[in-house]
Amino acid sequence: MIATADDHRWMARALELAERGLFTTTPNPRVGCVIVRDGECVGEGWHVRAGEPHAEVHALAMAGEAARGATAYVTLEPCSHHGRTPPCAEALVRAGVTRVVAAMQDPNPLVAGRGLALLREAGIETFAGVLEAEARELNIGFVSRMTRGRPWLRLKAAATLDGKTALDNGVSQWITGDDARRDAHRWRARSCAVLTGIGTVRDDDPQLNVRAVPTERQPLRVVVDARLDTPLNAKLLDGGPVLIAAATDDSARIAALRHRGADVVVLPNQGGKVDLPALLAELGRRGINEVLAESGFKLNGSLLREGCVDELVLYLAPSLVGDAARGLFNLPALSSLANKRQLAFRDVRMVGRDLRIVARPT
Amino acid sequence: MIATADDHRWMARALELAERGLFTTTPNPRVGCVIVRDGECVGEGWHVRAGEPHAEVHALAMAGEAARGATAYVTLEPCSHHGRTPPCAEALVRAGVTRVVAAMQDPNPLVAGRGLALLREAGIETFAGVLEAEARELNIGFVSRMTRGRPWLRLKAAATLDGKTALDNGVSQWITGDDARRDAHRWRARSCAVLTGIGTVRDDDPQLNVRAVPTERQPLRVVVDARLDTPLNAKLLDGGPVLIAAATDDSARIAALRHRGADVVVLPNQGGKVDLPALLAELGRRGINEVLAESGFKLNGSLLREGCVDELVLYLAPSLVGDAARGLFNLPALSSLANKRQLAFRDVRMVGRDLRIVARPT
Repeated sequence: MIATADDHRWMARALELAERGLFTTTPNPRVGCVIVRDGECVGEGWHVRAGEPHAEVHALAMAGEAARGATAYVTLEPCSHHGRTPPCAEALVRAGVTRVVAAMQDPNPLVAGRGLALLREAGIETFAGVLEAEARELNIGFVSRMTRGRPWLRLKAAATLDGKTALDNGVSQWITGDDARRDAHRWRARSCAVLTGIGTVRDDDPQLNVRAVPTERQPLRVVVDARLDTPLNAKLLDGGPVLIAAATDDSARIAALRHRGADVVVLPNQGGKVDLPALLAELGRRGINEVLAESGFKLNGSLLREGCVDELVLYLAPSLVGDAARGLFNLPALSSLANKRQLAFRDVRMVGRDLRIVARPT
Repeated sequence: MIATADDHRWMARALELAERGLFTTTPNPRVGCVIVRDGECVGEGWHVRAGEPHAEVHALAMAGEAARGATAYVTLEPCSHHGRTPPCAEALVRAGVTRVVAAMQDPNPLVAGRGLALLREAGIETFAGVLEAEARELNIGFVSRMTRGRPWLRLKAAATLDGKTALDNGVSQWITGDDARRDAHRWRARSCAVLTGIGTVRDDDPQLNVRAVPTERQPLRVVVDARLDTPLNAKLLDGGPVLIAAATDDSARIAALRHRGADVVVLPNQGGKVDLPALLAELGRRGINEVLAESGFKLNGSLLREGCVDELVLYLAPSLVGDAARGLFNLPALSSLANKRQLAFRDVRMVGRDLRIVARPT
């Protein structure tokens, strides 16, 4: 079978619906569903929040009897297992749908093709792979967690055109404009966690929550703080969950931070710093799909060096401050340009008066 | 009078013609001319080389008798003075043109409105200002030299995405890809001079001529070399004019460099370095319209600090090397971000796998 132009059109609609869950579905993936009969949409829906009905259930409820003999378009393979809700594959069979088109297989090992198999066993025609690349991008963090056991880490930075993120004295507010700040809050809002380092907590005392865009959910704030130096009056300890990743087992300090509402994990590496890959694995276990790292050049450098950076979101301001200022990545000197870290540009656009560059390591 | 859509269309054609002289007209401006009668083009031309006929002369020759009663579109006000060729304004009058539309007044103080005045005195209807912004951009260096007495200086740099132009050990080849290098040669080809520093001559021993694109003219190579350290076997001393700007009067060294074919000017500032604004003034006196600076972070920093940079052409490669490497601009540390140098983005596009950013100080 080859997908038709109509299949693509309906799947594009299903993806549009799925995207409405961008800020809310975590730890679940964003999923949209459209039920089409005789060339007309008879039902549509999207997953809103974990614990609530899946996209298919919403769409089938809207379609009612019209689902009989219809085609269901889903941006992710329907689930086949009993999670917090009953399996959607069974619901589609019961509703009498005769064809199911999925954008992609579910990367969840609990599903991984079983949903589509269950449908086929019930005599339903299935097809997977329509707008698959778009569907993967939409759930890139979920896919990462399911397939690699760790979240997708986006490193966000704001720099001058000469690559400087802060002055020599630590001053970094504000390099970019209001539009870029608002845009960065959208990346925060879709993330399950925002990650920063103790240097940024000390220098800027940030809240690291979503303020500039409407959202009903705040990301977990994660601080890489090897020696548990987070001040007890740090702003980010107010309002909302915080996880502090330490390399020291100082129980008094841990107790004090826990008393302030923070969760603490101790994950030392051999160098006495926080083991960043282990931290990502821990975040994966906690159901974190997308992490937005917003830190200074030291933690940025460590994340890059330890292979933790999946994507770079860089805002470049139209200004110059010169080489005395702090750069983007604190890394050991290279002896040859052959050892540079290669990226590929994914997206470049203006955000207000600043330039936004999205790039990924290749 | 208000310009019509047709006026804009014909002027766009004249600008297209003018651009054909992009690599050759220096020190003259690039000028195109279209003669239109009864809605049809009866003649067109462009200025090719200094000392050869101006655009109007070519277009009038092609139009012949058809010029009588026609409109002439010129991207620059017709000249009114006897230079190396007779005044074009007089030629237009003699040819019987009845209307002249110019994109802009000639910034040359020898003309400055007198060409249009001469036409009006002869009973010809004149209008200036159609596509003026585009016409100014095309001759931005000529305009700069005429109005400020100095060339337009474009600073070209190639950096990694984290703003690094060379490793700590000076290695800088190659950060960007072939397409960016070819593109940079186009900027060289349109420039009257390429400027670099002694550091780059020593580190890279560049030829600084145009190789990657066809051109019949090579720019003057200018080296900022305060202590006259340019090695006598430097590649750029072979083939083509070189000007060395020094801060020392060492006559033996000057004689040796002159013997190698280089011209030497001694322009010290109070700090014992080369006086860069004085050098730009000297280049202006020598008929240099556009300068492309291709240097390392030290001279880049000095040019920026001394207000010599009119435009930045920055190629950003999709790679990272970290903070130990050399940046773009060697500048003293700032104490406040309010003192950053503000730019505005003018053009951002992909050139092969690299990103090209054109920005100007505001």
